[in-house]
Amino acid sequence: MAGAAARPLAVVLLSGGMDSCVAAAMLRATHDLAFLHLSYGQRTEERERRAFRAIASHWGVTRLLESRLDHLKAIGGSALTDPTRDAVDARRPGSPVPDTYVPFRNTHLLALAVSWAEVIGARRIAIGAVEEDSSGYPDCRQAYYDAFNALVRLGTRPETDLEVVTPVIHHTKAAIVREGIRLEAPLHLTWSCYTGEAVACGRCESCRLRLKGFAAASAVDPIPYAP
Amino acid sequence: MAGAAARPLAVVLLSGGMDSCVAAAMLRATHDLAFLHLSYGQRTEERERRAFRAIASHWGVTRLLESRLDHLKAIGGSALTDPTRDAVDARRPGSPVPDTYVPFRNTHLLALAVSWAEVIGARRIAIGAVEEDSSGYPDCRQAYYDAFNALVRLGTRPETDLEVVTPVIHHTKAAIVREGIRLEAPLHLTWSCYTGEAVACGRCESCRLRLKGFAAASAVDPIPYAP
Repeated sequence: MAGAAARPLAVVLLSGGMDSCVAAAMLRATHDLAFLHLSYGQRTEERERRAFRAIASHWGVTRLLESRLDHLKAIGGSALTDPTRDAVDARRPGSPVPDTYVPFRNTHLLALAVSWAEVIGARRIAIGAVEEDSSGYPDCRQAYYDAFNALVRLGTRPETDLEVVTPVIHHTKAAIVREGIRLEAPLHLTWSCYTGEAVACGRCESCRLRLKGFAAASAVDPIPYAP
Repeated sequence: MAGAAARPLAVVLLSGGMDSCVAAAMLRATHDLAFLHLSYGQRTEERERRAFRAIASHWGVTRLLESRLDHLKAIGGSALTDPTRDAVDARRPGSPVPDTYVPFRNTHLLALAVSWAEVIGARRIAIGAVEEDSSGYPDCRQAYYDAFNALVRLGTRPETDLEVVTPVIHHTKAAIVREGIRLEAPLHLTWSCYTGEAVACGRCESCRLRLKGFAAASAVDPIPYAP
């Protein structure tokens, strides 16, 4: 395209949920996008992948990588990957971190994103982690991402120039909803529920945080919930 | 066992090569061991997995996790995972890092080790990275492991107590050979070659470093080489 300056490329870790969808909407203004999805044996992986594809199609993003990790399910230790554990009431005795925490999961996601970004020449990786209004997962905190960026600088080629950004990390869920509506993000295509496939349960931690966000933003969540 | 104090558990990233085998030999004195192997579409993955199993069997280690990552091969960008690139003469124009570097690979390995270690309660993760006498991969330097340990502290449960250790990182290849012989590590079962399956090529970077180590230690490498 004559006269059009090339825009830098960003890899967005798009789970299919609301937070990463809004993070992608925020990056779209300044970057060309590539979307990455990882299935790791979580309960709702098919539903999440369907949401991922629908969001990519909505925005016409064609640079897609869908991958899967079987070992997180084999390792277990989480209510998200082990069907014998309770993913709705997931408090864990003796730990401030709920049982839906998947051990060190975001490092797997980010490692994959860095490998891909380094090969395709992306300059940013965006992840929709949320610290304030969240479940308290240790790998959703800003300090974790600062440490991860230090690792990226040390662990990649010296000529690689790549940074992980967390556009919604300090947003409340209500702010994420408002930002998504303002940027016309396809929130109706997103999926957050930990347990449901056809309709969201409305009871798990992820549904509760999402519904609280819509209520606080005085907006109506466009996805269907169980009665 | 009455009177026997429980020993702490260590996960060893055992590739099947010499360095990680010697790292395991060093940990054996003080830890119970669990071995982890990852195939990621590298050229010699079957041969490496065979070496992994032989070493585990030699020491009677039964806590094993073999996993695979398909996306590193799909992403490409490395002579180790892309058969159209040259893995023997792997200099890369314009970069101090050779083309056999697999983008951010060790972060994938370590993420897997941390997830597993956190669930099985291991206190150490050992990796056979070598900095001084190496190919110059950025993710084999001590500074990278220091940054990774900072990430582990921030990205896992607060009650998790886990450290990545690099027992041979400052060893020369000759020192690794000598240490392996002293500790009776089964060096005859290890495999380092980037290209061969039946006999080692003797020409790739990994073979050259290994042979240099045996020569400097005045020892004979027990594995077969191409004439």
